[in-house]
Amino acid sequence: MFGKRDVIVHGTDPYNAETERAALAAGPITATSAFYVRNHGEVPEAGSAWRLRVDGLVERPLDLSLATLREALPEYEVTATLQCAGNRRAGLIAIRDIPGEAPWGPGATGTATWTGARLADVLKLAGPRAGAAHVGFEGADLSPEAKPPQHFGGSIPLGKAERPEVLLAWAMNGEPLEPVHGAPLRVVVPGYIGARSVKWLNRIEVRAHPWKGYFQDVVYRLLPPEGAPASGAGMPLGLVALNADILSATATEVRGYAFAGGERFVTRVDVSTDGGATWTQAELLDDLGPWAWRHWRAPLDLPPGEHELVVRAWDSSAATQPDDEAGLWNPKGYVNNARPRATLEVPRRS
Amino acid sequence: MFGKRDVIVHGTDPYNAETERAALAAGPITATSAFYVRNHGEVPEAGSAWRLRVDGLVERPLDLSLATLREALPEYEVTATLQCAGNRRAGLIAIRDIPGEAPWGPGATGTATWTGARLADVLKLAGPRAGAAHVGFEGADLSPEAKPPQHFGGSIPLGKAERPEVLLAWAMNGEPLEPVHGAPLRVVVPGYIGARSVKWLNRIEVRAHPWKGYFQDVVYRLLPPEGAPASGAGMPLGLVALNADILSATATEVRGYAFAGGERFVTRVDVSTDGGATWTQAELLDDLGPWAWRHWRAPLDLPPGEHELVVRAWDSSAATQPDDEAGLWNPKGYVNNARPRATLEVPRRS
Repeated sequence: MFGKRDVIVHGTDPYNAETERAALAAGPITATSAFYVRNHGEVPEAGSAWRLRVDGLVERPLDLSLATLREALPEYEVTATLQCAGNRRAGLIAIRDIPGEAPWGPGATGTATWTGARLADVLKLAGPRAGAAHVGFEGADLSPEAKPPQHFGGSIPLGKAERPEVLLAWAMNGEPLEPVHGAPLRVVVPGYIGARSVKWLNRIEVRAHPWKGYFQDVVYRLLPPEGAPASGAGMPLGLVALNADILSATATEVRGYAFAGGERFVTRVDVSTDGGATWTQAELLDDLGPWAWRHWRAPLDLPPGEHELVVRAWDSSAATQPDDEAGLWNPKGYVNNARPRATLEVPRRS
Repeated sequence: MFGKRDVIVHGTDPYNAETERAALAAGPITATSAFYVRNHGEVPEAGSAWRLRVDGLVERPLDLSLATLREALPEYEVTATLQCAGNRRAGLIAIRDIPGEAPWGPGATGTATWTGARLADVLKLAGPRAGAAHVGFEGADLSPEAKPPQHFGGSIPLGKAERPEVLLAWAMNGEPLEPVHGAPLRVVVPGYIGARSVKWLNRIEVRAHPWKGYFQDVVYRLLPPEGAPASGAGMPLGLVALNADILSATATEVRGYAFAGGERFVTRVDVSTDGGATWTQAELLDDLGPWAWRHWRAPLDLPPGEHELVVRAWDSSAATQPDDEAGLWNPKGYVNNARPRATLEVPRRS
């Protein structure tokens, strides 16, 4: 479906699929064909009539064709990791079931090079008015998860929207954006949960307050364990929390990714083979800039038998990950950023 | 000494003292008389000959008197929490001794309202040249901890230095800055470890690379447990990591502080009386803006007997604190941001 391969499909209506570990491990840039997809509705048709409207608290409302957008504004490239708030939910479900939510493993994340115009440049054209504090995005996809159905949407603070790394992207990894990834135009908000990188973008609304639509006001929020989804309940998700996972492990090597989120970066990754009593520093691989994860590797020399690996990443504030999933369980299954663990059976050499 | 009261003195030569819990608990603004002091040398004399030099990668080197600085530039106020990287070191020492480092409790932090000029405005006067990427600060204090002795110093990235919240401050809580807090002029870098808020500032150097002085290149760095201080060893500290502590606890109420560091803010604080199996949300008290901690309180209803309280704060990326100190031990005893615990004996009602 949608030309995808090397993915684990979590649903077909709407289509949802995560990248397999081996495809994530293949390199720091994730192949577009294997890049995860988190949809809340059917992939909309992007006809030739597509327009981008910019309205709300602006001096000059805009109504632009893609051709105008591409001709009027300079083009930029940003390499950025996207990560769904539900990445690694399977670890929370293992603690206690989360009915109605897909058991995403470590592949609801990926890194691509995005090409497009700066949102900041579009905002400059429109001219935010006094009171502007947030920038909302609305996609063309209609989600039946909201009652009545709503277009997917969300907002980010104006301060972030004006930063140079936030793009309105029409290309991904050097190819025109594919329909399943948001063609003809999507937002890319580096450092924020994937839900803010709204696909099939057809409206930008400059606002005084955060987006009140279902997917920001009810869905993508961290509830306390005993909480229930409701308008404004729990804390809104936005910045990605420091996270990591293990992508492959053998007797001689362990590899994985780590991502700091927000404006932070990964400073260190530690690996333990004795349950966290002692740690070895992993080697951080390719540095793709401030908005991308780091792949890492550590050599191992494990004797035959069963081993449990534990990994912890550190960010540029010298903060590290919480120990385990038990204390992180929440009713929607978001932000599992516990230290990843893997059990490894090393066979006897014969 | 220095008119301090409600402090625990860790040393007199140089003078080092932390705020007592009760004084921290008194309110979200810390009294100047009780505000912590972390010095690496004798408090220098600030004579009438004091000047601020601005040099390095600038178009126009400056040499300013305090009167010129105050007359030429607009004055701003920022309420900001400062926190020493060694705050809560006592919890790490309890795991394994750290010779030569003071056993700071939870009072190597405090919040004040600072008044001064924006560093950004001074930098604009000087005009950073091509290649400028960091801004270094040098104090008048001479520290014998470096061999040979060095002036205390440190740097922050130019991007942070140009933000409006970074001040060159001459007043604290509405009074002229006291000598022990850096008079006549100190830097205040909200969200960063206290070591970057250099006191007795007499030189700003715009640089291509981070500060190479002893206190940034050797001292204030997070080493792995088996590491040893050396030039460039470990990761440089900068942003404060999410942290919290308990300031008072009775059978009916627990209170404390939480601080997110960097550009993040505290979104939730949880309290557990059953070792972390279940949690209750604390009430977040006065919001003093994006650069200050949050005090918090939670009602309790504890029966007679011994109780262990555990607290965890969450930041705006939905990240929470690591579970305990054992895994955070490091040779210099920095960044103990483990979940705080307190043992409480509730007497039998007679």
